[in-house]
Formats: sequence, structure tokens, C-alpha cells
Amino acid sequence: MSATARFITFEGIDGSGKSTQARRLHNYLRQGGSDAILTREPGGSAGAEEIRALVLQGDPARWSAETELLLFTAARRDHLERLILPALDAGQTVICDRFADSTRLYQGLSRGDLRGKVDALHDLMIGVEPDLTLLIDMDPEAALSRAKARQTAEERFEDFGLDLQRKMRAGFLALAEEFPKRIRLIDGNQSEDAVARDVIAAVAQSA
Amino acid sequence: MSATARFITFEGIDGSGKSTQARRLHNYLRQGGSDAILTREPGGSAGAEEIRALVLQGDPARWSAETELLLFTAARRDHLERLILPALDAGQTVICDRFADSTRLYQGLSRGDLRGKVDALHDLMIGVEPDLTLLIDMDPEAALSRAKARQTAEERFEDFGLDLQRKMRAGFLALAEEFPKRIRLIDGNQSEDAVARDVIAAVAQSA
Repeated sequence: MSATARFITFEGIDGSGKSTQARRLHNYLRQGGSDAILTREPGGSAGAEEIRALVLQGDPARWSAETELLLFTAARRDHLERLILPALDAGQTVICDRFADSTRLYQGLSRGDLRGKVDALHDLMIGVEPDLTLLIDMDPEAALSRAKARQTAEERFEDFGLDLQRKMRAGFLALAEEFPKRIRLIDGNQSEDAVARDVIAAVAQSA
Repeated sequence: MSATARFITFEGIDGSGKSTQARRLHNYLRQGGSDAILTREPGGSAGAEEIRALVLQGDPARWSAETELLLFTAARRDHLERLILPALDAGQTVICDRFADSTRLYQGLSRGDLRGKVDALHDLMIGVEPDLTLLIDMDPEAALSRAKARQTAEERFEDFGLDLQRKMRAGFLALAEEFPKRIRLIDGNQSEDAVARDVIAAVAQSA
């Protein structure tokens, strides 16, 4: 595995196993001697976690889609400045569970047609893309059962049902077509071990 | 005084008396039978006040200029959607103590040269300008003494000293030249009553 610092993100619908796979890749890289860190969005830095709590706690309708987009972009900016960019500068590989692709989908698609504003805001205030994005693609129904089984009070984004899961899966597949160089599709309908092998192969191949 | 709903903002350096004058104009309009509301930024709606608290509490260096700009823009969007635009739609005059001009100065000028991003973000996510802005212009030294006399723990923006007051005054005067139709200059170096008379005259004249 390359020792070069890389920014690798995991994306996928809720219940697709991306958090588990991000953790497994992190362990694998570290066991192989790579200096890698594992983080997640929304959140990931002290300030971004405070913004995450502000957005996710309370009535889901308390923020409009536009305000929510601005708050998540503020959190991402903080996460980038305080954690991701300093780690990359220090030669560390950064593995992040969700990043801008999730915003392109969940804010850009699910609440009003905000994709144009999402992209303009990203270009203006973020401007960073991962070197590699692993999109864990999975049957929406199976993923939903898994997500529901471990649902916590905070996870209101995971409570929109099967229609949204299907819409988000289609949206992620469309993003993979939009960014074919950056996004690698991983079949998440396999055993956890088989998915982990595919992830490692994709990371090695793109190094 | 016209009964037409208008969006009127007060701007000026800290200690210039703008909050007092905003309150006095609000009282004057209501005593004259106008349906007017008084609000302020940052804050002004429940969500925006929470974002205000997140930004202003704690270590002043905890947010970068860019993250702070995004958080204030999120607060403004919430304030606009939840309070300002519904009030204007209902035929109320809205008086707001600080608005986007303060962001153009305090974020655009005082912390890095962010004015280009401030403007792009405003165009993208806010897009609303006041009908009339009353800029209370005042000697920076006198304004600073007044601001210091009533300083509270939260008011870290009011603690940058005379150099910043001078820089901000010059910045506000430059904004008045940039937006000559919208911004009216009021001489704040007079007695409170004399300033209030000038404010009322400017509001009547622009109706």
C-alpha cells in the first residue's frame, strides 16, 4: 500500500455498511504501518461536532434546507481546516465517513432542488475533493432494515423510509457516473469480509 | 409616515447609538399607528439566536473567518425566512439593528480580505437588501468610550480598540459611497434627540 497521504471518503445509503468498512480500512492501513486517521461527517472536529448537534437535535423542521446547507458547510469548513488538511499536510491518510457527496444528495436532492446551490457553495467555501471515494452500493431494502435495527434518537436522517433509500441509491449511482475518476463502486451486498477485500483492492489499485 | 411595509436597517460602529436609535424609531412608528417590528442581528429568530450563541461564546479564535462567515450567513437565512420576510409579507415595517453591511465590514474587512466571498455568499444564499439603511456615523473615539462603558462578556466584537473603530468607520463610509441610494448617513455626534429627529426625517424623506 502506498505511503502517500491520501484523502479517502466512504459514501452510500444508510445501512450500507460504509462506517464499518471505513473502520476496517483504517485498521488495515494502520496494521500495515500507514499513518492513517479515521473521521466522519457531519462533525469530525470539535466545532463541527457542535454544529452537528445544533442541526440534528430538536424538531427536524426547525431549519430550512438552505439554512441546514449553510450549517453543514460551516461544519465541513471547520473539519477541513482543523483536522483534514493539517493531517494531509503532515503526511497522514485521511479516511472520512461521508463528505460532500452526501451533501450533494441529502441536501441537494431530498429537500428541494438545491443541487445548484450545493455546488456553488462547495466551490466558494470548500473547494476540496477526495482523492478517492468508495461508494458502497447496496440493495435499498436490506440497507434500510440494517439502518433501522441500530437507529438512535439522533439519526433523523435515517428515518425517511424505503422511497428515500431508493431515491438516494439512484442519486449515488448518478454521482458515480458524474465523477467516474474519483468514485469507485463497491458491491455492498456481499459478506462484510468480501466487501472489505474489494475496498482494499480499490484503494491499492488507485494508489 | 407611509404605511407601506419597509425593511429598514441601522448600521454603524460599536457605541454609535444605533441600537438606541433603532428602538426610538420603532416606538415612533408604533405611536404613529404603523405596524412595525424591531429585531437585530446576529440573531433575531430562535434558530439564529442559537447560532449567535455558538459563534460568540468561548474562545474568539475557535472559528476561522470563513467558518464564522458561514455561521452568520446561516443565522441570517433563518432570521430572514422565519421573521423578516413573513413580517414584510404581512405588511409590517421591519427595523433591524445590523444586517448584511455589518458582515461586509466585520467579516469582509477585519479578519482577512474576505469581502469577495462575503458578497458571493450573500448573492447565493441571502439576496435581500434593505429598502433603507441608516448609517449612524460617529467619532470613533467617543463611540469606543460609550461601547466600553456598557461592554458585556459576550461582546467580543466590541473589544478590538480604537484602530479597529477607525478602520470600521472608514469602511462604513466607503459602503455608503458604494450604495448611495440605499444608505443614508446620519450624524451621530449630536444629542440623542437630535439624532432621532434626523432619523425620522430620513425615513419620511425616503418613504
